Amino acid sequence: MSNEDKLKGYSGPIKKKLEQLNIKIWDRIKITSDKDKFEGILLPRTEFDKPNFYYLKLDNGYNIGVEYQEDHKIEVIGYHEGKYQLPEKKVIYNEKKPNISLLGTGGTIASRLDYRTGAVLPAFTPAELFTAVPELEEICNLDTKIVFELLSEDMTPEKWQILGREVAHQINDNNVDGVVIAHGTDTMAFTGTALSLMLKDLPVPVVMVGSQRSSDRPSSDSAMNLIHAINVAAKSDIAEVLLCMAGSSNHKFGYIHRPGLVRKMHSSRRDTFKTIGSRPIGMVEKDKITIFETNYNKRSKNKRKKVKLDDKFDPRVGLIYHYPGIQPDIIENLIDNDYHGIVIAGTGLGHISKNLIEPCKKAISNNIAIVMTVQTLWGFTGLQVYERGRELLNIGIIPGHNLLPESAYVKLSWVLGHTRDLSEINKLMRENIAGEIFDREIYKGFLIFQGVEPWINDILTKI
Amino acid sequence: MSNEDKLKGYSGPIKKKLEQLNIKIWDRIKITSDKDKFEGILLPRTEFDKPNFYYLKLDNGYNIGVEYQEDHKIEVIGYHEGKYQLPEKKVIYNEKKPNISLLGTGGTIASRLDYRTGAVLPAFTPAELFTAVPELEEICNLDTKIVFELLSEDMTPEKWQILGREVAHQINDNNVDGVVIAHGTDTMAFTGTALSLMLKDLPVPVVMVGSQRSSDRPSSDSAMNLIHAINVAAKSDIAEVLLCMAGSSNHKFGYIHRPGLVRKMHSSRRDTFKTIGSRPIGMVEKDKITIFETNYNKRSKNKRKKVKLDDKFDPRVGLIYHYPGIQPDIIENLIDNDYHGIVIAGTGLGHISKNLIEPCKKAISNNIAIVMTVQTLWGFTGLQVYERGRELLNIGIIPGHNLLPESAYVKLSWVLGHTRDLSEINKLMRENIAGEIFDREIYKGFLIFQGVEPWINDILTKI
Repeated sequence: MSNEDKLKGYSGPIKKKLEQLNIKIWDRIKITSDKDKFEGILLPRTEFDKPNFYYLKLDNGYNIGVEYQEDHKIEVIGYHEGKYQLPEKKVIYNEKKPNISLLGTGGTIASRLDYRTGAVLPAFTPAELFTAVPELEEICNLDTKIVFELLSEDMTPEKWQILGREVAHQINDNNVDGVVIAHGTDTMAFTGTALSLMLKDLPVPVVMVGSQRSSDRPSSDSAMNLIHAINVAAKSDIAEVLLCMAGSSNHKFGYIHRPGLVRKMHSSRRDTFKTIGSRPIGMVEKDKITIFETNYNKRSKNKRKKVKLDDKFDPRVGLIYHYPGIQPDIIENLIDNDYHGIVIAGTGLGHISKNLIEPCKKAISNNIAIVMTVQTLWGFTGLQVYERGRELLNIGIIPGHNLLPESAYVKLSWVLGHTRDLSEINKLMRENIAGEIFDREIYKGFLIFQGVEPWINDILTKI
Repeated sequence: MSNEDKLKGYSGPIKKKLEQLNIKIWDRIKITSDKDKFEGILLPRTEFDKPNFYYLKLDNGYNIGVEYQEDHKIEVIGYHEGKYQLPEKKVIYNEKKPNISLLGTGGTIASRLDYRTGAVLPAFTPAELFTAVPELEEICNLDTKIVFELLSEDMTPEKWQILGREVAHQINDNNVDGVVIAHGTDTMAFTGTALSLMLKDLPVPVVMVGSQRSSDRPSSDSAMNLIHAINVAAKSDIAEVLLCMAGSSNHKFGYIHRPGLVRKMHSSRRDTFKTIGSRPIGMVEKDKITIFETNYNKRSKNKRKKVKLDDKFDPRVGLIYHYPGIQPDIIENLIDNDYHGIVIAGTGLGHISKNLIEPCKKAISNNIAIVMTVQTLWGFTGLQVYERGRELLNIGIIPGHNLLPESAYVKLSWVLGHTRDLSEINKLMRENIAGEIFDREIYKGFLIFQGVEPWINDILTKI
C-alpha cells in the first residue's frame, strides 16, 4: 500500500494524528473520549466527504462519520480488509442442472465493499457467488455477466433497452433455462415493467432480484433473495418477467410479483415490495414454489419458443404528481420542451385543478398524450363520476384505470415508441399487455388494503 | 319548469324521442332493447357531456351514460326530484351542550344532488343536518358556515389561509368548543397539514372530515363520518388539528389521525386514509373515543387559551416525484419560474439521478431550498448511507426524514412564508412542529407496514 493509499482521502489534523499513531485505512480502531466511544473499521474517504471526520464501518454494517476532536484517544484493535475478498471456488458444469444466466446491473446484491466509499460494489463471478452462497451450486449452472454498473437511480429508458436486448440474446442465442437480473431496488419495478412490455412470448422466466442490505451487513438479504430468485428462474413454470424479493420481515420466504403491479413501499425494510391492488403471483420458500390462484393466466414455460424483442421506447415522457397550488408552468414546460407524453398522478379518482385544464388542452392539441392515474396508488381512475373528471375525458385525457403512476410512465414511454396516434395510444394504454392492467380488486380487502381488516383492528386496540 | 329546463342539455334524436314520449329530466325511466336494460333517474346534462347519450342515475348511486339507439324502448316509472330536498327541522339551542362550528369548503359530505351534473352539491344548514342525521342534535349545538365551495382539487395555499383565519375566528371570537371542517377527501390531508402548522396553541379540537360516497348513495359514509368527527370535536381532549375518517371497510368506527402523517391511499374505499409509518392517535365508535398510547404528548383542551394564527405561506414551491429518465428541464423550469422551494420524492433512501445534480446545485445557488423525501412513502431519508446521498447532503439538499412528500410540500410552503435563509429552513424542516416528524417507527411492523406480518401471511397461503 502506498503512503497515499494508507490514509486515502484524509487530510489536515486527522491525517496528522493517524500518521503519528501509524494507523492506516482498514485498521479496526477504537475512538474514545469523555463522551464518545466508537469501534469500527477505518474507511477510505471520497472527494464528496466532509473533511475533519473519521469514517468508520461499525459492526452493525453502517458507516458513520466521527468529527475530529483533539482529545480523542485512538487505539488499533486489528486489520480487516481481507474479509471482503472472497476466495474463489472451482466451478464444475453439470449438464443435468438448468442453465441460468445472472445479469448484473449494479445495485446492492452480491456485492463486496467499495473501497472508495465504504459502500458496496457490485462484482460477481460464478465462483465468487458459489463461495458466498453455496446453496446456489445445488440449483443450477450459473453464467454471470455484468451488463452495466450503475446506481439504480441512474437507470434510463435507454438502459432498459440495452438490458432487454441482452435478455433476449441470453434466451434466443445462449438457450438458457432462465434469466436472473440483479438490480438496485430503488428503480427495480420500473425496469421490470419495461422488460415485461419489451419481451413478448417469453419461453422461460426472467426474474428481477436485489437486496435492501448489502452483503457485508449481518442482516443482509442478498443471499436469501438470490436463492429464491434463482430457484424461481430455474424451477418455476412461469415464463414471464417477475420480481422476487423478501415477503416478510423475518425473511422466511419471497414473494413472486408481476413488476407492473409492484411498488417499493419502504425505504429500508427487506419486505419493501408490495403488489398494489392485487396479490403477488406466488411465493417461494427455499426451493418450494407456491402459485396463488389468480384470475390471470400465467404464461407457461416453453423452451421451443423464441422471445420476441419489442424494444422501442420514447423517452420524452414526464410524470407529474398533482398537488394543491400546482401551477400551469409545470405542464407548459413539458410542452415547450417537446415532450410526447405526460402521466399525471391526479387526486382522488383522477382529478386536476381547474388551472391545469387549459395547459392540458394545449398539450393535447400539440399531440402530447396525457394519461391520468391516481396518486392514492390503490384503486382506479373514475373520470366518469364527477363533473371535473368528465371534463378531462372530454378534452381527451386518457384514463389509466388501475395503472400505478410509475407503471403508466413506463408503459406510455413504450407505447409512444410505437405510435403517436392519440386514439391508438388510448387503446394500447387500456389493453392488458403484461399483467399490468386488471379489472377489479380480486381479493377485495385482502393484501390489497390490509390494515383495515378486522383481525388487524382487534390487535390494534390491544397493543 | 320551462320547456328548455325539461330536457336540459339534450339535443338531436335523443331530445326528439324524449319530447315525443313527454319525458322530462328527473323522471325515473326504464330503457330496454334486446341487449340493454337500464332503470334510473334521467339527469340533466352539461356542456361537457358527449351528445347522443341518456344520462341516468342508477339506484346504486352511480351515473351512467346510455348511448342512443333507435330501437330503445323507454317507459316512465316515476318522478324523483323531491327526494333530494330535505325537510327542515326546528333547531333548539341547549346551553348544556358544547358548541361546535361546522365549516363547509365543498366536497362530498352532507351534500345533495347537484342539478347541473347529477354529482353532489354541498349545502347544509344545522336544520338540514339535524334532519338528515338526527344523532348530531344529541351531541352539540351546531353552527354552520360555508367558507367556500370548491372541488377539493382546486384547493390552494391561499385557500388554506382563508380557512385558517376562519377557524381562528370561530375559536377566539365565537368561543366554540370545537371546530369541524367538511372537506373533499382528495386534498384533505394537505389542508389538514397546513392548518396544523398555522394554528398554534389550539385550545380546542379542529377536526377535518369528509365523505367518500355522497349522501344520496346507499353506501354513503357521510352521516357516520360526521357523527364521529363531531363527537371528537365536542368530547375529546385532543386540542390539535385532526382528521377523522372511517377506520374499516365495515365502517363501524373512525380513526383519529394527525394530518401531517396521513395520506389518502385508495381512490374509492371509505377507509382510504392511512397514517403512514405510525399509528393513528386513536379511534372513535359512535361517542366512544379511545386514545392509543403514543410516544407523542397530545395537546389537551384548555378553553382559557386563545389560538395563535401563523398563516404565512409561500406558494412558490414545487413537488417532484423522481423517475428513471427524468430530465434536468424539470428542475430548470422551477428555477426559471422563480420558485423558492422544491420537494423531491427521491428513490430509495432519497436519491436522484446524476443528471439532476447540476440543476439542483444551480437551484440552491439561486437560494431555492430543496428538500428530499422518499417516494416509498414509508421509511426515512438516509442520505448518509450511499455515495450519491452524501453528495446530495454536500450540495446542500435538506433531508426530509419521515416527511411524506405531500407533507413536506405543505411544510416547506409554510417555512418559506417565514424565512428564505437556507440554514434556518433546514432547521425548521427537521423540527417537529405539529406531530409531522417522528424519530422511529414506534410500532414496527404493525399498521406501519401491515401486509407482511405472519398472521396475514398465514391467511394468504390459505385463501
